[in-house]
Amino acid sequence: MPTIDLNSDMGESFGRWELGDDETMLGVVTSANVACGFHAGDPEGILATAGAAHRNGVVIGAHPAYRDLAGFGRRYVDATPAELRGDVIYQIGALQGLARSVGATVRYVKPHGALYNTIAHDEKHAPAVISAIQDVDPSLAVLGLAGSPFVDKAREAGLTVYAEAFADRAYTPGGELVSRREPGAVLHDPQVVADRMVRLVETGTLEAIDGSAVRIEADSICVHSDSPGAVTIAQAVRAALESAGVEVRAFADAPSAA
Amino acid sequence: MPTIDLNSDMGESFGRWELGDDETMLGVVTSANVACGFHAGDPEGILATAGAAHRNGVVIGAHPAYRDLAGFGRRYVDATPAELRGDVIYQIGALQGLARSVGATVRYVKPHGALYNTIAHDEKHAPAVISAIQDVDPSLAVLGLAGSPFVDKAREAGLTVYAEAFADRAYTPGGELVSRREPGAVLHDPQVVADRMVRLVETGTLEAIDGSAVRIEADSICVHSDSPGAVTIAQAVRAALESAGVEVRAFADAPSAA
Amino acid sequence: MPTIDLNSDMGESFGRWELGDDETMLGVVTSANVACGFHAGDPEGILATAGAAHRNGVVIGAHPAYRDLAGFGRRYVDATPAELRGDVIYQIGALQGLARSVGATVRYVKPHGALYNTIAHDEKHAPAVISAIQDVDPSLAVLGLAGSPFVDKAREAGLTVYAEAFADRAYTPGGELVSRREPGAVLHDPQVVADRMVRLVETGTLEAIDGSAVRIEADSICVHSDSPGAVTIAQAVRAALESAGVEVRAFADAPSAA
Amino acid sequence: MPTIDLNSDMGESFGRWELGDDETMLGVVTSANVACGFHAGDPEGILATAGAAHRNGVVIGAHPAYRDLAGFGRRYVDATPAELRGDVIYQIGALQGLARSVGATVRYVKPHGALYNTIAHDEKHAPAVISAIQDVDPSLAVLGLAGSPFVDKAREAGLTVYAEAFADRAYTPGGELVSRREPGAVLHDPQVVADRMVRLVETGTLEAIDGSAVRIEADSICVHSDSPGAVTIAQAVRAALESAGVEVRAFADAPSAA
Repeated sequence: MPTIDLNSDMGESFGRWELGDDETMLGVVTSANVACGFHAGDPEGILATAGAAHRNGVVIGAHPAYRDLAGFGRRYVDATPAELRGDVIYQIGALQGLARSVGATVRYVKPHGALYNTIAHDEKHAPAVISAIQDVDPSLAVLGLAGSPFVDKAREAGLTVYAEAFADRAYTPGGELVSRREPGAVLHDPQVVADRMVRLVETGTLEAIDGSAVRIEADSICVHSDSPGAVTIAQAVRAALESAGVEVRAFADAPSAA
Repeated sequence: MPTIDLNSDMGESFGRWELGDDETMLGVVTSANVACGFHAGDPEGILATAGAAHRNGVVIGAHPAYRDLAGFGRRYVDATPAELRGDVIYQIGALQGLARSVGATVRYVKPHGALYNTIAHDEKHAPAVISAIQDVDPSLAVLGLAGSPFVDKAREAGLTVYAEAFADRAYTPGGELVSRREPGAVLHDPQVVADRMVRLVETGTLEAIDGSAVRIEADSICVHSDSPGAVTIAQAVRAALESAGVEVRAFADAPSAA
Repeated sequence: MPTIDLNSDMGESFGRWELGDDETMLGVVTSANVACGFHAGDPEGILATAGAAHRNGVVIGAHPAYRDLAGFGRRYVDATPAELRGDVIYQIGALQGLARSVGATVRYVKPHGALYNTIAHDEKHAPAVISAIQDVDPSLAVLGLAGSPFVDKAREAGLTVYAEAFADRAYTPGGELVSRREPGAVLHDPQVVADRMVRLVETGTLEAIDGSAVRIEADSICVHSDSPGAVTIAQAVRAALESAGVEVRAFADAPSAA
Repeated sequence: MPTIDLNSDMGESFGRWELGDDETMLGVVTSANVACGFHAGDPEGILATAGAAHRNGVVIGAHPAYRDLAGFGRRYVDATPAELRGDVIYQIGALQGLARSVGATVRYVKPHGALYNTIAHDEKHAPAVISAIQDVDPSLAVLGLAGSPFVDKAREAGLTVYAEAFADRAYTPGGELVSRREPGAVLHDPQVVADRMVRLVETGTLEAIDGSAVRIEADSICVHSDSPGAVTIAQAVRAALESAGVEVRAFADAPSAA
């Protein structure tokens, strides 16, 4: 029986500002990428999300970002490697403390936004992130972009790495994400998205934007949570996977609820 | 042979801004209250301080504060207990991550600035801090103001609590700090300060501002580090204690250097 | 023909986080209290709100707050008067710059949240706010709580002051707001609220929470905008006022649209 | 009689953290680039610096930066042009408000740090800065890097632009700054630096790093203020210029002291 993980970003409210429907999404996904305070997430809100994830048996991952609340971590910040390494350790440690206080454990790290995109390919920030994870807790797994050099580098460094595909994104024939600036880069039809993900799990391939088949190695599928439409897509993906006999299961060991 | 701990605030630089002479002070004190990022302390700088403390055999404590970088944590912020509890867990967890990445362990918590002063007596924020420590790691000791209700409350809650006196501050006959707004509240003569601390360790008493003897229960002495004059006082206190045959030793177990 | 101003808070989104329905509210109110960045409001978003207000002929006021993004300016911060004075000048100046760049002018100042509540009665922060307004631009009007000592103090200082009532709040027989912790403090029925406001404009009185009539001097009525229910109430108030022959008009001169 | 302006960065303390010796430097320079809060500068401190500049007859310029307190504005932040434009307007407006409250006027804008370096050559952020200045106050002059495309672009857009040279930096034969990563990029000998600046004002040329003469169009000379050594260089430059009969005078009209 094939298995796949579903992951989504959570804990991205901040003080007065609410974002995402964490409660609903915790009934859909098996892994929660929880904000760590640098792009989003105040401690009280993170505690609520981490506690709810723990009660739902959803695995908690750290979602560290560039220090950029105003830009939601979506803007590249030209930090020195030493600054970035410190910032990533700090964020992971903070989330570990919050998780521990609700009886849960952080199992993996998935960098957020511009940091995620930058380290997928670069030589400056990727090693800083890898070094941070190794030094704060080498038992943490890493969730990275399927097919990216970062996944290889993190594995070579000795980390346990899982690769993810994006449910609602088009792929090039070479297995890369089509840039959001290109037409057709983002898919909006829940049924189309769900069917693609079933094919991905069953065959290891997707239809690329030119119609060819492209092989994508994915341990997890990322679904979005920040709009009602996104939640609908996530639910459609999970329903289609289960109908097709796929077991939706976390890549990391599910924590036992308290 | 009597023993006493010396503690001081550290890691209080932030980005471009330097504050304190951590390197020198790590040769004087036995416990370092390390900033956690909310009133001061960027992760890269905290890493440097935590690493140096560890190499010097100085015990590391967390120094959490109100979220107030502009006010250096010296301003009361009327946070809800739930907000404050989350903020304290977050800061302790972040420092634990940073310490762990240099092979060290956080052994105690000493709240900073306005938070320290507020919880010494109040009913709203003290329980939030106690709950935060209990839930993130109940093995952490707490360093609090000698004679304050907070010390009693934290002990009743089951935490291991140590009490501290302030080397350069005058005391009332009742054992409280003389307010900084009163004349004579802060002592500036290194020899006077050093002699007072020797007497405190040897007899458990200090001369209060009215000349009477006041009993102060102190496991640790707080010395300041944020000016050249403060460092001179700290060095004088340590030298006088050692000349008097007092062993200057951390109240928490000293970590073995890596 | 009686006249009244309607004011509401705006520009309170921040980066990725949206809050309030500024576009709709700009069709309802005559004065917009625009966030200045310390409790909410990023410059790009403030520009959009200020531009839309200007195009709609809605008067722009500055809505300065304590420096507290995480608490949305709803938490008292024990700033020194000099710190607070600087913070208020900074925020007013910033909004004036943003307004000027869309061809508009800031006409008044209404402090936000905890700052508003604090200065209504205290002796420490109220003079700092008054001094800030006088020094940055004494031609700015001030919008304050009807019946509060702050209104009197600001007038004595020579500022032009307008008083406001809150549409959805209950009042004591003495003309003060019933605390939110008391039952019945907040009114939710749009028709009840609208009828109260018509009575207020027509008679200068409201029914207090004990059924007595209380006199409230109000140049403006504050309506909320941060929930769909709040917008419904605001629209009901405006409709009822107009049906009753009240002219809804800004207390400050309406700027002519570019 | 030849004239030249001397400019330096000021107001770069933040809360508890002090940086620079503004008081001394205000006796040396004729133009003060005053921090606006995004890389450094709290409002109370900016007020003090702006007031002192005004009393000393030193012209005040705005020194806006990327929103990056932790990085002191020295890190590129990949903001959208609309975000950056808003941030620059906000910062200029804030400083204008603070200056106005001490009776002074902001006369020019000099972008700070990574923003300065980025816009010197790029196509994305330079137009955003130019648009911000034009829209908030087109009477503001701009101070930019001598020989950079930004200077030309800002002039073409209709702004009044002045060019500056850096006192302690080596130049390529093509008139560009030698990268700090190259040996010899930064000059440390006060006499050497002072002699170079006299030659620059008298002849319009400098000795480039290869010994050739390079023409630099400079209306102002930037001297640093953030270390005792930097202040010594600044004083040496001013003394040498005056000895050589050069009038040190602001490029913008000096404001009359109150």
